[in-house]
Parts: sequence; structure tokens; C-alpha cells
Amino acid sequence: MNRLSRIAVLVAAALAIGATTQEPNNVARVRAWRVEHEKAILSELFDFLSIPNVATNQSDIRKNAEALARMFEHRRFAPEILPTGPNASPLVVAERRLPNARRTMTFYFHYDGQPVDAAEWMYEPPFRPVIVAPHEPQGRTITLSTWRDAIDPEWRIYGRSASDDKSPIVAFLAAIEALDDQNIPLTSNIRVIVEGEEEAGSPHLEGAVRQYADRIRGDALLLVDGPRHASDRPTINFGARGIMNALVTVYGPARDMHSGNYGNWAPNPALQLARLLASMKDDNGRVTIDGFYDDVTPLTAEEKKAIDEIPDVAPSLMKTFGFSRPESPDRLELRHNLPTLNIDAMEAGGGVGGQGRTIIPASARARLDLRLVKNVDPAKQFDRLVAHIRKQGYFIVAAEPDADTRAARPLVASVERIGGYPAGRTSMDLPIARAITKAVSDASGGAIVRLPTLGGSAPFYLFSDVLKVPTIGLSIVNFDNNQHGPNENVRIKNIWDGMETMAAILTMP
Amino acid sequence: MNRLSRIAVLVAAALAIGATTQEPNNVARVRAWRVEHEKAILSELFDFLSIPNVATNQSDIRKNAEALARMFEHRRFAPEILPTGPNASPLVVAERRLPNARRTMTFYFHYDGQPVDAAEWMYEPPFRPVIVAPHEPQGRTITLSTWRDAIDPEWRIYGRSASDDKSPIVAFLAAIEALDDQNIPLTSNIRVIVEGEEEAGSPHLEGAVRQYADRIRGDALLLVDGPRHASDRPTINFGARGIMNALVTVYGPARDMHSGNYGNWAPNPALQLARLLASMKDDNGRVTIDGFYDDVTPLTAEEKKAIDEIPDVAPSLMKTFGFSRPESPDRLELRHNLPTLNIDAMEAGGGVGGQGRTIIPASARARLDLRLVKNVDPAKQFDRLVAHIRKQGYFIVAAEPDADTRAARPLVASVERIGGYPAGRTSMDLPIARAITKAVSDASGGAIVRLPTLGGSAPFYLFSDVLKVPTIGLSIVNFDNNQHGPNENVRIKNIWDGMETMAAILTMP
Repeated sequence: MNRLSRIAVLVAAALAIGATTQEPNNVARVRAWRVEHEKAILSELFDFLSIPNVATNQSDIRKNAEALARMFEHRRFAPEILPTGPNASPLVVAERRLPNARRTMTFYFHYDGQPVDAAEWMYEPPFRPVIVAPHEPQGRTITLSTWRDAIDPEWRIYGRSASDDKSPIVAFLAAIEALDDQNIPLTSNIRVIVEGEEEAGSPHLEGAVRQYADRIRGDALLLVDGPRHASDRPTINFGARGIMNALVTVYGPARDMHSGNYGNWAPNPALQLARLLASMKDDNGRVTIDGFYDDVTPLTAEEKKAIDEIPDVAPSLMKTFGFSRPESPDRLELRHNLPTLNIDAMEAGGGVGGQGRTIIPASARARLDLRLVKNVDPAKQFDRLVAHIRKQGYFIVAAEPDADTRAARPLVASVERIGGYPAGRTSMDLPIARAITKAVSDASGGAIVRLPTLGGSAPFYLFSDVLKVPTIGLSIVNFDNNQHGPNENVRIKNIWDGMETMAAILTMP
Repeated sequence: MNRLSRIAVLVAAALAIGATTQEPNNVARVRAWRVEHEKAILSELFDFLSIPNVATNQSDIRKNAEALARMFEHRRFAPEILPTGPNASPLVVAERRLPNARRTMTFYFHYDGQPVDAAEWMYEPPFRPVIVAPHEPQGRTITLSTWRDAIDPEWRIYGRSASDDKSPIVAFLAAIEALDDQNIPLTSNIRVIVEGEEEAGSPHLEGAVRQYADRIRGDALLLVDGPRHASDRPTINFGARGIMNALVTVYGPARDMHSGNYGNWAPNPALQLARLLASMKDDNGRVTIDGFYDDVTPLTAEEKKAIDEIPDVAPSLMKTFGFSRPESPDRLELRHNLPTLNIDAMEAGGGVGGQGRTIIPASARARLDLRLVKNVDPAKQFDRLVAHIRKQGYFIVAAEPDADTRAARPLVASVERIGGYPAGRTSMDLPIARAITKAVSDASGGAIVRLPTLGGSAPFYLFSDVLKVPTIGLSIVNFDNNQHGPNENVRIKNIWDGMETMAAILTMP
């Protein structure tokens, strides 16, 4: 950094301090440190992003775990690489104890990334991280090692796991280093777990959480993952939904029939399936399955207030995704606290394209996903779905019906449950929840988003319900990060902000 | 044939003559001739079936046309091979004039066959015809050239086009040869047209019919194709339905959306399509589209009577096809005289199997077929479908909607019409129709099936409405012939019966 730009950055930092009256002194000091160390922080991130991390390649995965262990050791943590099963990604755990800690806080991250298709990446392949100036023509790319001026916080770093979930790890470690360098004491014992199979559906996480519970448990657990709310405000969540899939097959004739000879006389299972699916929701998007919402724990006054405070991004979302009328008049963040029924896929006949076949298809199938919220049990919810299908007149079979069943039953369907785990939710009113909320809010000057439940599903319940630790999700990366797809990226400002948020949590009273 | 079995066959033939009091003498004489010539008739059929006849192979097609020309020449017809277009199968026409003919009768057949997958054939490949004794263990196969005893009429010949439509041609030629050999005079000038693209959808037939109208036209036209009614009675029909396909696409968000983040808030086009399809029919299988049945010409008293006389095969069909409740309480043959709407295929999302994707799919599609009956215009019927979709609140687009359309319209769909031609139907009350009906009925002893309209679609209207010739369909092959699939076959008895039916028509007063 040359002298002039360094002064400019320091002035900007000083102005920022003045602008946010609530801001704790620690946060300002971490920012000042960061301004002096930006290139070093990003260099560590670049090195980490350069290690491929798709969970199916165990040799790559091992390299990530070992790099992580070194990164934690460097900050005076005691790391361990713990096996979770044969051919499974290990869990990296690390701990740093204080003599007079007020509490123990556990941070969860993951080090694996989604599979990649290098051909679809615009700038460099997914494991060659690159800085891009997005608002300049063609998205100019910047080489960090030769760059001399100030780093623009609007620049973005492209690479697999740039947002999901390596930048949060680097921001966390940089926050600790910033505090250490300035002799600002942490206030909690810190435990860290870094999973290596999150993008593969966390198949070994439950076993690992149970096996290593004594190394993981704390007074609170922070799940640091996922993007901020679309308003780009720092976002914390207090729960995530559960999920279950259901494959519904409606059986028509034993084999495809000629639609001319038999059409509109023989029953068509595609029409039957259409009717069945249509019967599951009313015009306001409310699921009409008996008891579907019965067990839902209602939102508290505080949770409702939290939702009321969230900026309404519905109009911009509808514009982005190209539709003009939501299924329900309720706002999205309220819907996230209700169970859902969604059609993922539907299939009947031999394909809609090409020359086509004029048939009555022998069967029609739909794949549904049912999201679950706190207190809604997966098995009970599945039973309600089956009961609804039965109520529409269907005889339920476990496999393709035999001739006797076909002869006796006008409507025949099977319903297969695929997977499923419950939701988890932490009360916003717990003292530790209030303390973390205050720390995040103070670090950012107040405007944060508090989500009672994330829309997506995550094994949150493993921590909140199995481990029984108050669990809170913290999201620091930009909303528009192309998570899971090609051209995943992180906006540099979100890393800087994330450091400050984490410093506030690490030093909260 | 050895001496004993020859006597047995002659006795059986004599008994059969005695049993049917109405049977004309000509029919008995044709039968007696046939008994003496069975191996020669089947040899001709075997030779013809050995020539591959898939319409996409023009070299094979040419060989079929040339073989046909020789077969007709041998019976004193003047055949011609007429081009129908570039890379199109030629039409084989043939004529035989009489000095004092009462009328001119035209016979239609086709010489092409459905595509084949040799791996799926049980006995021999599709163009190596083979006789099978179906009721013996493993279906014993019989080699005609070494066979010495009587031919069992229950045996079947397996091979592509065995039923559809080469046996009817051979039966027709054998009937003529039987009459000629016994000096029984024909009563009509005979014209024949043999199409070579029927299984490819007759793309050049309309042009050929118009171009060669003067060589085709007669006082009546017999379409000899398709299977008998499931009761196995000789079957004639007086019409065939038209058909049209429609591809309905319901547009959801501009791209697939995460079902956790947005499910049950963003609209799901698969659910919208399910509702739309469900709106098209009531619980009795009646199409609820406005005006759908308005233009239907009601059945006459004679047509209703013909349907009443048909044996009710619904229970056995339901057993064969494995279902217990038809869509409509009306009998199948009545339904054939109404327009239909059938779902051929339905598609949304990334597939129902495997790991699946939890998404709100960007679109959902259904392929429909609409069968048409006499007086129901394809274009008008398509307009009614579109009007119905509009009435459900949809804005209709011609292609993927743009951002402005998406922003303004809550429900967006496209409806693409694919193909389409009208139905045709001949009055049962015409003198020529009555004469043909009587000939077929007399030849079989009375119990025949008269169908006002076939359930399937065929370009019947080209003859009945474009050429304006009273047209009647005649079906002689067995119902269970695996037409279009692997293991197509013909029961030998149906060839023998077909000869007699044709002899009766060729000599009718």
C-alpha cells in the first residue's frame, strides 16, 4: 500500500468509527489491524481456496484438513483430525482454553465444497482463486501479488468455497489474530468443529456429534455458514428446517394403453395424479392435508418482531426470479416458520418432446419435498400425507399392485418416504442468545436480520436437540454468491465485516 | 398333407358349410379351394414377410413395392408403382377391369411396417417369419417346408407386418385366385392402392390421393387394416377419428429455485399444471372445456343399434389391462364417437428418481392428444382448449415469456399445436354400405361387429371427405396380434376367414 492510499484508508476507518456510536472499541481496533493486513489475510484465503475440496476425493479432503490444522495451530489452538467413518471426511476439531473464561463457545464451519464443472467458470477454474473488479468492463481480474494500491472492498474473489464456507473460517482466524496481536483478551474458551461432508448431506455428522460430544459441547454453538439475508445485513438465525422427500406413484393400467382405442374410457394415472396434487393445496398456498400445521410451535412475540424488522425484499426477489404473484400472501420469512409441501418433479409417459407417443401411461409419479419446522415430527408428517392420499380414495400399496389389487381397487398409489430429519430452533430469549445478538448488532451498528428459522434445511437439530446446546446460525457472506453453482464468489467487504462480527462475539462480556 | 388328414379337413369344411345356413355358395367354394392350397398361400405370405419394410429404408421399401407389383400381375391386375415425393415410399396401384361390372370397388392396404427391435422378439428376428403352435409348451415352432400334416388354424405366424398389414394383402390375392381358379366371376371392377408410409404417419398420402384421384376413385373404398374387435368377430367400421397433439407449458420462475429458501412462497408450475389438467375433466370423465362436444354429429338410430349389438368386452379388457373402474360409465364403443382429451406425458423438474433435486422447477409441461370425431374441426377444437386455459386465468404466450410478461402476469402458459387432421365417417344407411355389410355378415354366418367409428385415428377423411367416396374399414386379423410391438403375429384362422370375407365382397350382387 502506498502512503497516500494508506492515509485514505485510515481516515475512512476513523470516520466509520465516528459514524456508529454504539460500536465497541474492540471492533474499531480489529478494523484498524485489518487495514494493515489485508493482503496477508487474502493470501491465506487464496492458499486455502487453492486446495480442491470436493468430498468424494479423499486425498484432496485430507490436504484441506491438514492445512486447517496448521492454520489453527498458528493461532495457538490445539487441533485434532478425527475420523468419522471409513472413506468419510474427517472432522477437524480445535480448542483454545482460557484461564478465567466466562463460558465455552463452539464454532461450526465446513471445509468441503460442492462438485464443480470447470467449463462453466467465467474467469479461472474453480480452484484457481482470482480477484475480480465486478463493476469494471468485462470484470477486470486483479493479481494480488503484484497489486500496489488499496484493495477495493467491492471486489470479489471467485473460487469454489469462496463463500461456502472457507471465507468465514479465514475471517474467524483473522479476527483472533487481530485480537491477539493487540492483546485484546478473548472472553470465552473457544472450540471449533470443521466438517468435511456438509455438501454431501452430512452423512456422518450425527455419529460424529454423538461420538465426540465432549469435545464439541459448549454453552452456545455458532453455525457459521450460508449467505446473509438479501438486504445484505448481517444475519443470524435461530433454527433451520428439517426435510423429508416422498415419492408418490399413481398406478393406472398394468401397461401403457393406446390412447385412441381406450383413451377417455380407461383411467389415466397422469390425470389422477394431477387431481391428487391439486387436492393438496388451496388457492392461498395453504396445504389442505389434515393436521399438517397442528404441531407447529407458534412464533413468540419476539420472533414475530424480528420478522417485522426484516426489510421486505419480496419485490426485488420476484423481479430477480421472474414472477409476479407469490403462492401465499404471507411474507416469505413467516412462511419459513411453517412446514411446506413442494413438487420437485413430476413424470408420466414417454416424454413430452419429439414425436411423442399417444398412450395412456401405466403410471404417473411425483417427487415431493416436505420441509419441517420445530415440533413437527417427520414420521407423523409422512403419515398425514399418506392419510390424505387415502382420504382421496386411494388404496396404498408398498410396491407395484398385483392383479387382484388392480381388480378390486379403482385408485391405487404407493408413497415412499426418502430420508428425513427434524427441524431445530433456539429461543431468541435465552440470555446467551440475547448476548450473541447484541454482539452482532453492536459490531454492525444495529441493523441486523434475525431469522427465527432458515428456509433451507440443515442438521441444526443435531446441535440444538441431540447435543442440547443453544445453537445460532451466523451468516456473513454476500447473498448473491452463486453458492453451489459455477462462479461462486465472495465480496471482500463481507470478509472484513465478518471479522468484526466475530471479534465482537469473541470479546463479548 | 397325408390322405387321412386331408379327408378330415374336407369333412370339417363340409360340416362348416352345413352349420351356416346363410352362407353363400361362393364362400364355401373358396374355402374348399383354400384347403387344397394352404401351403402355397402361406408360402407367398412368408416370402412377402421376409422383405424388411420399415419406411425409413427406401431400398427395402422399393423391394416390397416390386414384389407387390409381381403379386398383382400374377392375378391379372395392371400394377403401377407411383412416386409420392422425394425420398418418399411409392404408392402401388393396381386395377382389374371387367366388361360388365356393376361398380368399381377400391381396396386400400399398406405394405410398410413399424420399426423393429430384433432383440425383443421371442422366436426369430422380425423379418424371418416363423409358425408357432402357441398352445404347446414353449410355443413349438414349425417349419413350413418340411411340414406334412394338416395346418392347425390356431397356429400363429410371427413376423413384422404379419397382421399389419401384409396378411390382409395375401388373403385378398388368395381370394381372387380362388375365385379365378373356379371360374367364379367377380362382380366389380377392382382397384387397389397399397401405401408405403402408413406407419410413418402417411405424410404423403393426401398429396397422392389428390394427384392420383382418378386412379383411386370408385363407388366404394375398403380400408383393409387393423384388428378385429376383441370379441374376434369380423369387424367393419364406418369411420376413424382425427387427432391433434397439444404441448402445454406452464411457466414458473425464470430458473429453478431452492425449495427450502422459496418453497410455498414462490409459485410452483408443477402444481399449477396439476390444477390446470384437473380442471379439464369432471369425475365422470366428461371434458369440461366449453363447447368441447358442441359440434359432434349425434349417432343415428342404426349406429346406436350397431353398438348395442357388439358383445360387451369391458370386463375382459379391464382384466387384461389391470384396472377396475373406467373413467366413464358409458361403454367403450360409445366413447369412440366422442372427442377425447388424454394426457400422453407430463414432465417437471429434474426427474423423480435417484437423489433428486429439491427445487421449484422453472416450468412444467404436459403433452395431450385430442381425438376428433365427425364434424369436429381440429382448429376449432384447439381454440377451445386455449380458451379454457385462458379462462383459468392464464396469459398465453407463443414462447418463453420475457421479464415484462413475467412481471405483469401471475399465470403464464404456452400451448403448441402439433399436427392434426379431422375425422371421417360414412353413413351406415348408404345402399353400398348396406351391401358390403350384408356380404361380410353372410360370409361369417351373421355375427359381425359394426363400429360407427374406430377409436384410433387414421386418415379415413382423405377418402371419405377429400375423395368423397363411401369408405368402410374392414378388419380381419386377430385382436391380440401385438401390432406395432415386438412379436407381432397373425392367427392363421384369421387369414382363412379373411379370404372368405373378401370373396363375399368381390362377388356381391
